[in-house]
Amino acid sequence: MTKHVVAALQIGADPKGTQAILAKILSFEDELKEKKVELVVLPEAILGGYPKGSTFGTHLGYRLPEGRQEFAEYFKGAVEVPGPETDQLASLSASVGASIVIGVIERAGSTLYCTAVYIDRVKGYVGKHRKVMPTASERLIWGQGDGSTLFTTEFDGLSKVGGAICWENYMPLLRASFYAKGIHIYTAPTVDDRDGWTSLIRTIGNEGRLFAVSAVQFLPTPEVANLSMPGWPKDKNAINGGSVIVNPYGDIIAGPLRGTEGLLTAEIDLDTIIEARYDFDPVGHYSRGDIFQLTVDERAKPGVTFN
Amino acid sequence: MTKHVVAALQIGADPKGTQAILAKILSFEDELKEKKVELVVLPEAILGGYPKGSTFGTHLGYRLPEGRQEFAEYFKGAVEVPGPETDQLASLSASVGASIVIGVIERAGSTLYCTAVYIDRVKGYVGKHRKVMPTASERLIWGQGDGSTLFTTEFDGLSKVGGAICWENYMPLLRASFYAKGIHIYTAPTVDDRDGWTSLIRTIGNEGRLFAVSAVQFLPTPEVANLSMPGWPKDKNAINGGSVIVNPYGDIIAGPLRGTEGLLTAEIDLDTIIEARYDFDPVGHYSRGDIFQLTVDERAKPGVTFN
Amino acid sequence: MTKHVVAALQIGADPKGTQAILAKILSFEDELKEKKVELVVLPEAILGGYPKGSTFGTHLGYRLPEGRQEFAEYFKGAVEVPGPETDQLASLSASVGASIVIGVIERAGSTLYCTAVYIDRVKGYVGKHRKVMPTASERLIWGQGDGSTLFTTEFDGLSKVGGAICWENYMPLLRASFYAKGIHIYTAPTVDDRDGWTSLIRTIGNEGRLFAVSAVQFLPTPEVANLSMPGWPKDKNAINGGSVIVNPYGDIIAGPLRGTEGLLTAEIDLDTIIEARYDFDPVGHYSRGDIFQLTVDERAKPGVTFN
Amino acid sequence: MTKHVVAALQIGADPKGTQAILAKILSFEDELKEKKVELVVLPEAILGGYPKGSTFGTHLGYRLPEGRQEFAEYFKGAVEVPGPETDQLASLSASVGASIVIGVIERAGSTLYCTAVYIDRVKGYVGKHRKVMPTASERLIWGQGDGSTLFTTEFDGLSKVGGAICWENYMPLLRASFYAKGIHIYTAPTVDDRDGWTSLIRTIGNEGRLFAVSAVQFLPTPEVANLSMPGWPKDKNAINGGSVIVNPYGDIIAGPLRGTEGLLTAEIDLDTIIEARYDFDPVGHYSRGDIFQLTVDERAKPGVTFN
Amino acid sequence: MTKHVVAALQIGADPKGTQAILAKILSFEDELKEKKVELVVLPEAILGGYPKGSTFGTHLGYRLPEGRQEFAEYFKGAVEVPGPETDQLASLSASVGASIVIGVIERAGSTLYCTAVYIDRVKGYVGKHRKVMPTASERLIWGQGDGSTLFTTEFDGLSKVGGAICWENYMPLLRASFYAKGIHIYTAPTVDDRDGWTSLIRTIGNEGRLFAVSAVQFLPTPEVANLSMPGWPKDKNAINGGSVIVNPYGDIIAGPLRGTEGLLTAEIDLDTIIEARYDFDPVGHYSRGDIFQLTVDERAKPGVTFN
Amino acid sequence: MTKHVVAALQIGADPKGTQAILAKILSFEDELKEKKVELVVLPEAILGGYPKGSTFGTHLGYRLPEGRQEFAEYFKGAVEVPGPETDQLASLSASVGASIVIGVIERAGSTLYCTAVYIDRVKGYVGKHRKVMPTASERLIWGQGDGSTLFTTEFDGLSKVGGAICWENYMPLLRASFYAKGIHIYTAPTVDDRDGWTSLIRTIGNEGRLFAVSAVQFLPTPEVANLSMPGWPKDKNAINGGSVIVNPYGDIIAGPLRGTEGLLTAEIDLDTIIEARYDFDPVGHYSRGDIFQLTVDERAKPGVTFN
Repeated sequence: MTKHVVAALQIGADPKGTQAILAKILSFEDELKEKKVELVVLPEAILGGYPKGSTFGTHLGYRLPEGRQEFAEYFKGAVEVPGPETDQLASLSASVGASIVIGVIERAGSTLYCTAVYIDRVKGYVGKHRKVMPTASERLIWGQGDGSTLFTTEFDGLSKVGGAICWENYMPLLRASFYAKGIHIYTAPTVDDRDGWTSLIRTIGNEGRLFAVSAVQFLPTPEVANLSMPGWPKDKNAINGGSVIVNPYGDIIAGPLRGTEGLLTAEIDLDTIIEARYDFDPVGHYSRGDIFQLTVDERAKPGVTFN
Repeated sequence: MTKHVVAALQIGADPKGTQAILAKILSFEDELKEKKVELVVLPEAILGGYPKGSTFGTHLGYRLPEGRQEFAEYFKGAVEVPGPETDQLASLSASVGASIVIGVIERAGSTLYCTAVYIDRVKGYVGKHRKVMPTASERLIWGQGDGSTLFTTEFDGLSKVGGAICWENYMPLLRASFYAKGIHIYTAPTVDDRDGWTSLIRTIGNEGRLFAVSAVQFLPTPEVANLSMPGWPKDKNAINGGSVIVNPYGDIIAGPLRGTEGLLTAEIDLDTIIEARYDFDPVGHYSRGDIFQLTVDERAKPGVTFN
Repeated sequence: MTKHVVAALQIGADPKGTQAILAKILSFEDELKEKKVELVVLPEAILGGYPKGSTFGTHLGYRLPEGRQEFAEYFKGAVEVPGPETDQLASLSASVGASIVIGVIERAGSTLYCTAVYIDRVKGYVGKHRKVMPTASERLIWGQGDGSTLFTTEFDGLSKVGGAICWENYMPLLRASFYAKGIHIYTAPTVDDRDGWTSLIRTIGNEGRLFAVSAVQFLPTPEVANLSMPGWPKDKNAINGGSVIVNPYGDIIAGPLRGTEGLLTAEIDLDTIIEARYDFDPVGHYSRGDIFQLTVDERAKPGVTFN
Repeated sequence: MTKHVVAALQIGADPKGTQAILAKILSFEDELKEKKVELVVLPEAILGGYPKGSTFGTHLGYRLPEGRQEFAEYFKGAVEVPGPETDQLASLSASVGASIVIGVIERAGSTLYCTAVYIDRVKGYVGKHRKVMPTASERLIWGQGDGSTLFTTEFDGLSKVGGAICWENYMPLLRASFYAKGIHIYTAPTVDDRDGWTSLIRTIGNEGRLFAVSAVQFLPTPEVANLSMPGWPKDKNAINGGSVIVNPYGDIIAGPLRGTEGLLTAEIDLDTIIEARYDFDPVGHYSRGDIFQLTVDERAKPGVTFN
Repeated sequence: MTKHVVAALQIGADPKGTQAILAKILSFEDELKEKKVELVVLPEAILGGYPKGSTFGTHLGYRLPEGRQEFAEYFKGAVEVPGPETDQLASLSASVGASIVIGVIERAGSTLYCTAVYIDRVKGYVGKHRKVMPTASERLIWGQGDGSTLFTTEFDGLSKVGGAICWENYMPLLRASFYAKGIHIYTAPTVDDRDGWTSLIRTIGNEGRLFAVSAVQFLPTPEVANLSMPGWPKDKNAINGGSVIVNPYGDIIAGPLRGTEGLLTAEIDLDTIIEARYDFDPVGHYSRGDIFQLTVDERAKPGVTFN
Repeated sequence: MTKHVVAALQIGADPKGTQAILAKILSFEDELKEKKVELVVLPEAILGGYPKGSTFGTHLGYRLPEGRQEFAEYFKGAVEVPGPETDQLASLSASVGASIVIGVIERAGSTLYCTAVYIDRVKGYVGKHRKVMPTASERLIWGQGDGSTLFTTEFDGLSKVGGAICWENYMPLLRASFYAKGIHIYTAPTVDDRDGWTSLIRTIGNEGRLFAVSAVQFLPTPEVANLSMPGWPKDKNAINGGSVIVNPYGDIIAGPLRGTEGLLTAEIDLDTIIEARYDFDPVGHYSRGDIFQLTVDERAKPGVTFN
């Protein structure tokens, strides 16, 4: 069986919090079952949220008290991984029969991470990836994942899946690392709704010779979404979506879905990967290991280790 | 509930011995209850005592017999941990509703240790920390704790508490170890009454982004305290106190209390820690595990083990 | 002066040979001058040609004599680098005032290489890049460049320029190497006319935070172009063009030009690179050298060296 | 014991696939036992096959879909090394008492390699060599082995064996590398059936001063073999065999066997090597290390390495 | 000669740029000579500047164009290290006879670093330290130094000097690393003007048993300093100074100087270090290497390396 | 003009000495002219001679005086290069219009070398190659050439020519060196008349993708040739010839000529080399410089140098 239905679920983080967003995900249960989806990817920070436009009260050289309080609220809205929320997702996954990759804000000690959580429809929670490099203001609120976080897994009944979150996907060496791990489906949760993102996902499909599923958040205009976004056009959606599914030639096979929430699905045939790698295999016959040697330090670097 | 009252009880060891000092502690029972203290920290060596000024008859290359006798006396005044005295403290703790961290001189085999004892208001004795590095003349009378002694605990109704005794708190790697254990309240029993100590406690609060409670002994002038302190000014208190409570920004929120015995209390809000770690998390987003890797060997090293 | 006009000259290789194609390039002299072009990029194999559709008589396990003869003809049509043709290009470059990057078939010993030649408007020939990995049938007729061929240069009056040819641009480690060399303008001669190529060039601009200029050949239908292209639609152009110029945000600023020959120009402002790297610098603040370490072996590997 | 019987088993790859060809090999079990063969060499690509005449739908500049599908079929027919097929071969090897060198198409990630597998009659699978340079159309379907693949082994009861596949044997530096590794029996699986090949094997025996065993595939006419071979004479066998065994003077001691399948055997006396190297030792007294210095980079060059 | 005069020069970055600030430094030449200063420490970012209050137009999820332009301006105002500005400083250093540690904004490729530059009065530029962890909004504009940047040097006629910039000094493992390198004078350029900073410097002196010299910027009220500082009191200086010099017991020997620019000097006697380490040596007799093992990875991690 | 006639002149050294052999060569002048030969190769040691069968009186551990005398005679019969004999050959070459490669015994100081002399039909003597490794008893009478002797030249009107003498042609690294020098015609003077030699020459043509011309001496039976050849069959020619000309596919295009003296000619088309290197170029696309690096030390090594 090399044919499977994969999906990107384009929704927005809910200011009402984790349970509200879990409920929203649950509302797609019938559609997921009906379309026989085996893998569904959800956007970045869909649990925990992405308060677009905020500066968290931080100016160069000082932080305002209200920014600290905003952070404390945000901190409390984050989830532990694994934890109760991943248990709930595992139940949903088992019931629907679809494995899940979902972007969450992870609370670990006193630091938050932007994390992609992997839920297998049979085994439940199997692992996570922490964004290794937050972008711009994200660096105020999220820590950096280390090399131990380049997670991949073989989902039940499916094949090897991995991926990264938002702009770290622009890091060529990170992508090359995932290709070298031999994944067949590259997942890319994000909040980047620009069309350059579509080009990136197409390029990932093309250069990686694999299927790429990117799920983007959709959030309406700042006013509707209850966001403070200085300098942002009043009528422009805060995050306009753009979820897309791409095949191993870089052709779009579903989406991009813009301007609305919704479920994007595509049937994929994993044999296409073999055919596509006939003339390009980024870590096989089309690499030049004699010239380019990438070493990936996957060791956890906790700073302090107790024996 | 993130708000709690914590306290440092600044008293001096009593030459009359353990029961006398336990009685003195008991005399603060009402005040502790009235102020709803949930955690009270007592100074270093408050049981067993700190005979400031003594050389225990030791000169480089020889020991005088009277020094040996003095040590024998001191040895007998020490306590076993756990033992009858910790039982008495557990009763007090339960009755007052305040967990206790207290500095004692611990007798183990034929060696003494400078130890901090942890008494939970519900569970009683829960563990201890032995000073890992005595200072100067302390090396004549106390052994060194090993890596198994970096004790922390979650006190009933409170949060994670740990800490160290007197100058070992100047060891940056020791402090980093406690931060990595995720404590929220750092306790520091001591006999150091100088103002540099206040700077240290403020720095611990600041760099650890936690509350720090330091309890210092108060002992009056040598004559009053019945101490032989050659070279010490007659009118200067033997140990002048300096107990202090500090918040996660390194701000003093109680004390320093100098020149007298007394109970120092402060209300703390544990949420402050989250807000403070927004911009500094010593073992999270503000560490550099890729550069600095601290390994802590927590194994007990008894020297002789029988299988 | 950070503003410059750069161009992609979209033409097709001429079956009449090198002098015919040099004449065709010359016919754009006035337009190049008029538009004040300072850098013009030409497609892959524009000298020497790209006989699309040929198999060079090669079947798995044997080569037909007519294929060998076809190769010998192709071999003779190739150019030496540097050589008379690069001298002619240098004259044109000096006269027009535009530096040139041009794709040629290079003859070296008995092996052909697919090469990009760099002509500075002041210094003339300055260096070359040999494609390090030919694609599919190209492997029958071209050798592989080694690591010494990752050429970059600072063109007179302009800034640092480099790049690669056709599908080797899909190699993430190769691209990362060029980014690390600090180039500002990435040139990509090619014969790939599909729209996935446009996505790639946009991604290069975006992930490299630089300007990317891709020149694609244009060749009419096989019959008109005098090509034998089995399985190719009669009415479809052999190579449909698609030259494009992209800015450091991955936005298209000229093209893609399809279905015709022509000169594509765009004014670029090198300061845009600084602004774009504010939030993404692939070899600076947005790399993770502690995790991903790429080593590039740039040594020439001639096989046999004479001392 | 310096005398041994070695053999080349000249058969053709079976379009019915791996199990059919394993069955065919098994049909020689009695003959191998009877002749007390201790080493049997099988041709190139005998598992996985060599679809002579195919172009895999590849033309310069494009690939036809049917070519990609043909590749996908071919990919699935390849074997993993080690894997179930090498286990089966190990059983046969143990049962017959003959170590085996066999050419297979190896599947590794998404790339195929043309590989020689070494099966020891006692230890089973011991290693493999990947062809470092495919020829012509082979470059469309196979990757290149790196320097880590210059495998040699001491087979049980026999002596040091190594070798290479088909045309890479024409690389003088590769051959010199194997001579320098001190092998006594050079194995050369191939599909080259021309008489120039016989000259090469004789030269290898002569210049290497060792025994050389070359096993060539035999495939009947294209029609019978079910191959599409444009430009190939109807009545000419697709691969005509030519297996041959040569002694350290370059004298043929068995074969060449042409026009049929069959088992070629010869008794060899390893002492002959000593006698032959009396007047020529290519890596000893007859080398000129002061003039010719060959460096072989045997490091694996995987492109991406994970720590 | 163990006695030396060391100084902290408390000034503010000048919006008129690098030459203006160099002129301001020069204006202290006579005072430096007169006081026989041998080491002068200048604040963080004194070249390049610290635009306190700016957000550089960055909101979570997007950057405003004016923020990018602000960054581009800031980028151009940064200096290369070494470069013309360090040459000018070297001249000043030689003329005055005082070695210099100065905080600058360093431009390297397209990334900025917050760097401390070391100028020896005899050898000129000798090395630099890049802040390994920027704080809050600094993460938007500065990259992170790697482990190769823990620079120390023996200044001419003086002793071993090292140190770190602003809040990275709160990292206990970083400080421990510098102690282990055996420095005698710890320099700490900063823009932190709070009194908690004084406690930190006192603690560094105390726990490191060395002299600590911290130079803090002084900038007047936002209006005077021409800064936009939302949420900042109108009458409060933007950066209020607080430079301080501390001895190996943690005692303040000069400063803190607040509310004005000025030169702070103190005579130090390096022998005091030996005396102070009598009872506390953080990397000697008062460490516990059997429990706490800190490994510092000082390798440069450039991401891409060319051989 | 890519077509040329090349020849091997198979004659035997004449016991009557140099002038006799020069006369014998002269006797082929008409035939050479008639057949428009542009390059003629003569056997090894044709001047100076190859006294096959002699031991030069040498036994392990001692030399007989008559051997010494025999050597002295042989020494006197050798020629200086260049010298009168090469002048005579140059005249012949110019007159015939054929360049010459001829094997001679060269006298240099007191050592003899087995040398191939290159005579250009226009320029006369142009260079020489000394055998770098004599075989067996040759080691008694000839020295070893050094790395400066790997001579090649472009003969007038022809192309690049080089080669080696007799068994040194079995050295794979020596042959690879000549291939790397880019020769098109490989000359191989020899006295080896066995059929393994034919295999070698075919392999040289094949692996070098060039034309190979080997000239072998012809000497009749020992008695007729006036040679003492103990153990040699009375009726067997001392050297039976075997001159052969081979094309770049390793096909024989003239010869082998056995059992007689004579002139062997073949028309060659240098374009065949390009066609042949289409699928194999030993120092281009079919080399693996990343694995196999051959360094050739071509410096003269005279032992004693005077500055």
